[in-house]
This record gives sequence, C-alpha cells and structure tokens, in this order.
Amino acid sequence: MYNIIYSQGGVCASDGFFADGVSAGLKPDSAKDMAFIYSENECEVASVFTTNKMTAAPIRHFRNMGEFTTNFVLINSKNANAMTGRAGIEDIDEILSTCTDVKNPIMSSTGVIGVRLPKEKIIDGVKLFDYSKKDSSSAAKAIMTTDAFSKECAFKVKLDDGSSFNIGAIAKGAGMINPAMATMLCFITTDAAVSKADMQEVLDEVTKTTFNAISVDGDTSTNDTVLLLSNSKSGAYDKAAFAEALFKVMHFLALEMVRDGEGATKLVTYKITGAKDDTDAEVAAKALSDSLLVKTALFGEDPNWGRIASTIGASGAQANEESLKISFDNHCVYDKGNLYFDEEMEKKCAVVMQHKKFTISCDLGIGNGSFKAYGCDLGHEYVKINADYRT
Amino acid sequence: MYNIIYSQGGVCASDGFFADGVSAGLKPDSAKDMAFIYSENECEVASVFTTNKMTAAPIRHFRNMGEFTTNFVLINSKNANAMTGRAGIEDIDEILSTCTDVKNPIMSSTGVIGVRLPKEKIIDGVKLFDYSKKDSSSAAKAIMTTDAFSKECAFKVKLDDGSSFNIGAIAKGAGMINPAMATMLCFITTDAAVSKADMQEVLDEVTKTTFNAISVDGDTSTNDTVLLLSNSKSGAYDKAAFAEALFKVMHFLALEMVRDGEGATKLVTYKITGAKDDTDAEVAAKALSDSLLVKTALFGEDPNWGRIASTIGASGAQANEESLKISFDNHCVYDKGNLYFDEEMEKKCAVVMQHKKFTISCDLGIGNGSFKAYGCDLGHEYVKINADYRT
Repeated sequence: MYNIIYSQGGVCASDGFFADGVSAGLKPDSAKDMAFIYSENECEVASVFTTNKMTAAPIRHFRNMGEFTTNFVLINSKNANAMTGRAGIEDIDEILSTCTDVKNPIMSSTGVIGVRLPKEKIIDGVKLFDYSKKDSSSAAKAIMTTDAFSKECAFKVKLDDGSSFNIGAIAKGAGMINPAMATMLCFITTDAAVSKADMQEVLDEVTKTTFNAISVDGDTSTNDTVLLLSNSKSGAYDKAAFAEALFKVMHFLALEMVRDGEGATKLVTYKITGAKDDTDAEVAAKALSDSLLVKTALFGEDPNWGRIASTIGASGAQANEESLKISFDNHCVYDKGNLYFDEEMEKKCAVVMQHKKFTISCDLGIGNGSFKAYGCDLGHEYVKINADYRT
Repeated sequence: MYNIIYSQGGVCASDGFFADGVSAGLKPDSAKDMAFIYSENECEVASVFTTNKMTAAPIRHFRNMGEFTTNFVLINSKNANAMTGRAGIEDIDEILSTCTDVKNPIMSSTGVIGVRLPKEKIIDGVKLFDYSKKDSSSAAKAIMTTDAFSKECAFKVKLDDGSSFNIGAIAKGAGMINPAMATMLCFITTDAAVSKADMQEVLDEVTKTTFNAISVDGDTSTNDTVLLLSNSKSGAYDKAAFAEALFKVMHFLALEMVRDGEGATKLVTYKITGAKDDTDAEVAAKALSDSLLVKTALFGEDPNWGRIASTIGASGAQANEESLKISFDNHCVYDKGNLYFDEEMEKKCAVVMQHKKFTISCDLGIGNGSFKAYGCDLGHEYVKINADYRT
C-alpha cells in the first residue's frame, strides 16, 4: 500500500528539478513569457502530442530527435511556431544551440499560429535563465496565454517500505472549447525510479480519462503537448502508486483547464452510463461537453434537457428515447419516455444549474459502457476573448 | 433546353396549391404559429429527415404511414413534439382526425423539445384554416421560431416545347450552428409531372450540396424535415430542368438560413479544392463552417488564417502544411509553406472580412476532391438567443 499526499512546489516538488519564468518581451508590459525546466540528472521522457495534422514545429523537432535523454525544456508563450515549415524547425535549432551546459534540450511553444518566432528576443531571454531557481509558479505564469490563472500541482507518494517519490506539474490551457486552439501544454516532472516503458504506458492510459476527457485531444490544436520527465532521483517506485499519483496530477490540471474555460462560469461533469460500450459512452459524453447549444443553455442556467437528448441523439452513439434517462445532479427529469419536468422540477434543476459545479447524468439504458467528460458553459466572455485573440 | 425564371408566390406558385398561416395562441402576441399546405389533387411525396436518433413524433408518424399520397400538410411552430414518446404520436393522430376533407394529412412541428403539444389549441387552430387561401408568406411566417425573417422562393421552368412547370417552397431555420437545434424545416411544392422515384432521387442528390452543406444534417436536431409534394398538375416535366430548378430553390433557402444564422452578420463560403476526394473535402469544409474559433474570428473580422489551418489539420481530412494554400477571396495568405501574411496583406484581408459575403478558399494540394460549405459568424447575439431560447 501507499499514501498520496497533496504537496507544494509544482514541477520543483520533484527532487533535482529547477524551473523559472522570465520576461523576454514577447508579451506586453514585461509579463513573463519564457520558462525553463532543468534537472540535475538526465531524464527519460514520455510524451503525448496533438493529433492535428498541421503539427507545430516544436513537436516535429522533438520527433526528429529520436530516442534520447534530456535535462532541459525551454517553453515560450505568445507564439506557437506552427505553420512555419522548415524555417520554424531551424529557428528552434538556432535557439537551442544557445542553451549551454544542457543535454538534448527540448523546446515547446504556445500562442499565435503562422508567425515566425521572434528568435532574437527568445535568445536574449535564454540569457536571463538562472538554473538554480526553484520557482515553478513563475514558470506556470510564463506559459499562460488566454489563461485567467496559472496551473500547477504536486503530490508526494509514500510507499510502505518508507521510501517516497514526487510528481509535480505545470500546465496551461483555457480554450477548452473544441477545438482547443489556444493550445494545451502540460509539463510533468517526477523523481520516481520509473522505466521509460512504464512512463509512456501510464501516461497514455491516464491521458484518456483526463486531458482527453476535456476534449483537448479529440479535435486538437497544432501544439498540444504533454511531457513527462523522470530523473529517478528518489530511487523509489511502485507502478500502481505512480499511476494513481499521475492520474491525480493530470485530473486536477484537466479540471483546472475546464474551470478556466474562456469566459466559463461553471464546471459540468457529463456522466454517461448504460452505453453500448465505453467508446460509445465517450462519444455521447464529448458530444455534450462540446455542444454549443448545451453550453449556452448552461450559461443561461436553463435546464433545457431537450437539448441534452437531441445532442445525444445526434452524437452517433447508440441511443433511443425509450431507454434514455436524464438527471441534473440527483433530479431525474426524463426516464424511459416518462417526463418528470413539471414546474417544480424545473425550479429544482434551475437551482442545480446556478451552482459552479454539477453533474448531468445520462443513462442510455442499452449496455454497460460508461465515460465521464468535463465541460464548461459558453457566454459572452468567450466571444469577446476569441473575436480578438490575435489583436 | 429550358429556361428557369425566378417567380413569386412561394409554395402557392405551383398550380393547384394553397397555403396560409394562422394564430392559434402557441406564440405570444397573436403571432402566426400554424400553417397548412393544401393541394386540389393528391400529391406524391418525397422526403429527407434528420439522422438524429431521438426522432421527433411527426417524423415517426410519417414513417408509420408507409406508402401514400396526400393533399395536406399541417405545420406548427413553438413546440417540436420531440421526446414525447407514444403520446406524441397519439396527439398527432387526434389532431389530424379533425382535419376534414383531406387525404392522408401529414403533420410537422418545430420548437421546444420535451413538452407535449398543446393539442386543444392546435385543434382550435385547424378550424381557422381556409383552404382557398393562397398566402404562402403567411405560412412561411407561421413556421418561424428563432428566425429573424421568413423564407420562401419559387421558380418557373419553361421547356422548349412551350410547356412549363413550377417549383416553390417555404422554409424555416436559423440555428445554423451545428447542431441545428432550432430545427430546419422546408416544404416544397411542384406541379411538375415528376414520378415519385425521380422526386426522391433528385431530392436526395440536391440535399447534399444545399441543406447538408450548411451543416443542418451532419449533426441534426430531432425534427429536421424536407418534404417535396408534387400534384403533377402542369403535365410538364424534364428531369434535368427539374433537378436544376430544385437546386435553385434549395440552394437559395439554404443560404437564407445561413444568412439568418442566429445573430449572424456574415455569410462565408468555404471552398475546399485539392482534397484526396470529395468526401475529404466535405469533412474539411464542414469543420471550418462549424469551428467556434473560426466563427468568432469572423465575428471579430480577424483574418486569423492560423485557425483555418489548424481546423483543417484537426478535421480528419488528409492535409499537410507543405501542400496547403489558403486565400481570403483572391488574397493568398499562405501557399505551400510560404507566408504572405505581412501587414499590408493583413489589411487587405481585414477589408475582405468586413464584407457581408466572402469566400475562404483552401487548396489541400493532394488530389481532386472539392466541396463548398456555407457558414456564418458567431457573436454575442448567438449567446443571447441561445442562453434563453426556452424562456
């Protein structure tokens, strides 16, 4: 057995990791816009990237590196270095060549698509890095774009033999409305003595129920990236404990991203049960979390269950009105053809929808498939933010 | 050869057809909310319905009728009679039993989901119908829900032998943002001497490039319906002329629906060429017309071509940045890795985007597939309309 305890320090919670954020003049008003993560020891790396076919230069660059260990990640915001072709990759090579005393540095970018990196500013920014800093919060701030708040967390895992290891992370992402153009980035560090094979296997598995449950990867941006770095410094490891702690880290950050959905005021869990299989449940759950009409109904605090039913019907998942059941938290409004949506029920559901967090449950009544997706509402702020993101 | 001439009269332009709209008190302020279409002669019927699995009662009722001819369609707005189960179908039977002197009447509904029809009001409304009226405009008004304006059109086809026939239609639809919950309905009449087989074949074909090109059918509401009625009264027919005239009717109404997209200020054509095949082109074109981030950029009049590229990349269509070309009207901003988006170009594109109508063209540079989709922008009005549609 093991204990997993919430701790402080973000990516620097893991032993031997350092991080900081600086301002290189990419953002206005001297806001932090460049970050690094550095490890004393070389790290194994596991990764999950966007499935977008217009893959950004940093991801292409990473893939060109083949098998490697590293101790350095450089991140910039404000410019995604996407749709920049061969020049975008050459820019990365030139920038990383100025990062001295590090092994196989990795670069990651987020921001506007289709503009060459401001290379000179970034190279000047690299000179400001102090590798002895342990300021995960500054790094988290530096990678923000349309995020309203920075995102980091860490957990300590205590094993029964008295040994322990840490997992910590920073992330950015706020455009959780599909497709997630503002780009989701997450950098996770650990000092667990985990093998590269285990890292990748667990990361892939946990991604499905965390970042992929918030519609980040279904219809993704050009830059979406999750990197997991392990320097093995603790010497401690237990696979089940590692998987559970990694889930806690990624689940926490995924929900933080939804909570920070551009202009979002509500965090809604879409719980699908009784689907033909888990895949069908996922299809139905994501259709709900992505539906504009559902999102605007949430914003209006209108328990418009007809939109829920119609969205499931249109999702492609196997469903029919004779076996469907829909509830707002524990209030069932529709059950296998029976309408329970009288005036009193409408009031009860409207109260549920005034909460910042609630669950919409749909039992499709067909099989045993289930999935939970997470979504937010869509209001005027979203339009405002996205109508002039570039300018 | 033949001539196709724009004409007046909507569904009543076809000889022997009558129509009107009345107020039955479903909408407030005595607005028209019930319509009928009546033909002196019995009609063959062709149909296209929603693919939504939560099919509304009127569509189930229609399907239960099997093969039949009819001379009467009853339409109500404000209530969709969807998710109402067997009771919803029984309500239709009871209502239609009060429509006397007609053969195999059809009912169609649009409006809120999950509420039983106000049966008594509708039965009282039927009593107000005057089958001698030829007021297509009133019928078009009566079927509106969130539409800002009513939609109808008609064309006269003159064949070389001196004979002629008419096609006319009314339609409703404004929620052209996917999924189209506010429901798209279209009723088309013709006096062409067309066979039932030809009617259905041509209707299916034309739907692909008209109503299905505006994302009405990809992810549809519970009620989407297109009905084509022919009473053969003109005795005239030519298949090619019929197909072209039907395309003109449906294309016109499809673009009217986009122009009336809830809160929309722009009508944008997404022209995809060079795709692997036509299906891939359709996937890419619809991804653009459905993308929230593209829609909000349109609203902000921001030529954010990076969002166009990323959306195509995420669409599932075969694409890559090395062969892609993107233009706003005739201004090419990106061509096979070359960026032409300097300050001057940005200004030119911003001017294009200030227009009410323009084209975004993307050549995927892979094969010969092509497709045109039509979309609108998304602004604050959309949120306002949809946050409290039900109330």
